[in-house]
Amino acid sequence: MNPSEWFTEIVPGSQSAFSLKIKQKLHEEQSEFQHLEIYETETFGNLMIIDGCTMVSTRDNFFYHEMMSHPALYTHPNPKRVWIIGGGDCGTLREVLKHDSVEQAVQIDIDERVTRLAEIYFPELCESNNDPRADLKFIDGIKWVKDAAPNSVDIIIIDSTDPVGPALGLFSEAFYRDCFNCLSEDGMIVQQSESALFNLSLIGEMRDAMSASGLTHLQTLFFPQCLYPSGWWSATIASKSALKAFREQDSANKPFETVYYNVDIHKASLAQPEFFKKAFLK
Amino acid sequence: MNPSEWFTEIVPGSQSAFSLKIKQKLHEEQSEFQHLEIYETETFGNLMIIDGCTMVSTRDNFFYHEMMSHPALYTHPNPKRVWIIGGGDCGTLREVLKHDSVEQAVQIDIDERVTRLAEIYFPELCESNNDPRADLKFIDGIKWVKDAAPNSVDIIIIDSTDPVGPALGLFSEAFYRDCFNCLSEDGMIVQQSESALFNLSLIGEMRDAMSASGLTHLQTLFFPQCLYPSGWWSATIASKSALKAFREQDSANKPFETVYYNVDIHKASLAQPEFFKKAFLK
Repeated sequence: MNPSEWFTEIVPGSQSAFSLKIKQKLHEEQSEFQHLEIYETETFGNLMIIDGCTMVSTRDNFFYHEMMSHPALYTHPNPKRVWIIGGGDCGTLREVLKHDSVEQAVQIDIDERVTRLAEIYFPELCESNNDPRADLKFIDGIKWVKDAAPNSVDIIIIDSTDPVGPALGLFSEAFYRDCFNCLSEDGMIVQQSESALFNLSLIGEMRDAMSASGLTHLQTLFFPQCLYPSGWWSATIASKSALKAFREQDSANKPFETVYYNVDIHKASLAQPEFFKKAFLK
Repeated sequence: MNPSEWFTEIVPGSQSAFSLKIKQKLHEEQSEFQHLEIYETETFGNLMIIDGCTMVSTRDNFFYHEMMSHPALYTHPNPKRVWIIGGGDCGTLREVLKHDSVEQAVQIDIDERVTRLAEIYFPELCESNNDPRADLKFIDGIKWVKDAAPNSVDIIIIDSTDPVGPALGLFSEAFYRDCFNCLSEDGMIVQQSESALFNLSLIGEMRDAMSASGLTHLQTLFFPQCLYPSGWWSATIASKSALKAFREQDSANKPFETVYYNVDIHKASLAQPEFFKKAFLK
């Protein structure tokens, strides 16, 4: 294994690493906020790296983007206004805009360079960027939520990097309280919540902070994600009021294509592993 | 990343690699059949490598061993006689023997050295080896099945290495036909079936060979497995006759501990991803 031919992400906590063989480095820059790299890989298509961590590949991003959007959108009774905090690669935005009920989808990523690079190297993820319902803002998502008026959004999707650096504030009780305050009555948030195998205590802290903020009816859902540490990822939904049962019939009749998500996968993602139940659902 | 401090498995097809940081090499030998290595890792406990491929770690083997056994055993109406082809680390045997209905569990691994090393380095997986219902044979599983009398087994668990080298014959129509012939009327097989992200065409060939042998009602189930390529693994159940609905109530009241498996996880594992349905369930 010649290191110059591979991109490797070492996961410090688990002392594990995942590597992809690369054909070439396509781009590298230091943006105002982060170190960005783009590689062409042998079998995963293009690969975006932020601050040394794998973010998105052409081949396997569908798991994450579909599971960050469709379960929440099919749980809310009528999602019209959706915000995506982070999500600069625009893949979540694309999935959100597949829902006809959505009237406005605002993507708020602090780093415009992520989106500009996605437009070049992941054009398929950006194919809905010119949808008239889409609004791309390159500002601080934490401040955006803090300054928002009550009842101004139905779903907030927190599609961020790991809870270090600029994303750390997105995992705090103060941020969740600001989300609570600007959500509509049926509103909910969904946040990427790392690996239940590697980051169980972090998930516990997130859940505690969400609950302390007033959010309720937490649901952690599980899905594969080869590119991310342990290959097994999660997202956590939390609601402003009673969580509705998901719109199963609408999901079963979804009028758009997906690669991983369907109504059975939606239900399956909500099954809680035995160790997870013991940790959090006593 | 100093290569001498890490064990790395390169997956040729996907040109990806997974690595674990090691504290020390505990053992290495060339058995009559395979190259065997045991490492002590930083965070995954002990790690067994066969012919360069990760086989089992202390930390995350529970996913695989539980999902190779409990779904099949809770689907068969009354499993009394179980054979495990391969499975030399004895982790599947331990899970099978948690079921009170099982009267006899025969583990048939061609390589006795795998079991002898598991007894030393994975003693928790071997804790049921002295159960009076357990019978450990170190012979060729393909020949064992070929020579077996009709109606001599209820469930055959094929817990093998990848379909190369000694395990290749375990993925053939001839082997499945031999399984069919010795299964009882309600009998079924369950076989590890690699990654649906990396090995979809292999899964297709397996399913075709199973169907051609006379086995029917194929169900592929999905579960996380950090140690294996893509971090997302599968097993495929095939039945001699009509597949029974799984014994949901018995699973919900299971009288033993698990780490991952429970009745909800069982149902969830049967959800078929959209791309998988399109490939095989037209």
